[in-house]
This record gives sequence, C-alpha cells and structure tokens, in this order.
Amino acid sequence: MCEANAYLYIDGKEELYLENVDVMKPEEGKIFLKNLFGEQKVFEGQIREISLLRHRIVLEKL
Amino acid sequence: MCEANAYLYIDGKEELYLENVDVMKPEEGKIFLKNLFGEQKVFEGQIREISLLRHRIVLEKL
Repeated sequence: MCEANAYLYIDGKEELYLENVDVMKPEEGKIFLKNLFGEQKVFEGQIREISLLRHRIVLEKL
Repeated sequence: MCEANAYLYIDGKEELYLENVDVMKPEEGKIFLKNLFGEQKVFEGQIREISLLRHRIVLEKL
C-alpha cells in the first residue's frame, strides 16, 4: 500500500502524528488529514517535507 | 512503487504537471518537487489536495 506516516517536526525531533495517511488538504494554515482507516485529524501548521518513496510526511507548526 | 503524479488544477480542469513525484517541499509560496528520475520542478502556488492511495497530487496557483 502507498499510504505514508505523518510526523510532527518539533525541536529537531520527529514525533509520530498519524499513521497510514491517505488524504491531505491544506487549508488556511491548517492541514486536514485522513488515513486508511477513516481516522481524521486537523493539524495547525504546514507541510515541511513529503517523501512518497520513503512513506514520510513531515509537518511543522507555523 | 509509491510515487504519485502531480496535476495542476486550473479553471476546473487538471493538467499533468510532473509524473512519478517522490519529494515535495513547500517553501514560501512555492513547491519544490523532485521525481523518481531526479527531474526537479519549482511550482509557484500551493498544494490543493493529495491522495496517496490514488497516487494523485493536485497543485493550484495562489
């Protein structure tokens, strides 16, 4: 499967934020995320980096 | 493979922008993209939506 895990970059470290992310929609300083299991989260911040081949999404606070 | 194609959403339609995208980095109103073959592009705009399971990235102008 081609989902990715979303991590929160904070103080130079990465914390797991949401596993198996499918959909992401940035909206006015927030990122709406939905994963494979229908779990939804809204992150207040921005996308720092995505690597699809490494299945990684890195988010950060503004 | 888990790369995705990037499309540009314009006037309600989608045009292919870059195939086989691996890495994306948003930076100050631009999105840096790199694909599986090392091809790089910088898009002036933002991410509209990503669906990893559908291998789709949709970009739009600001």
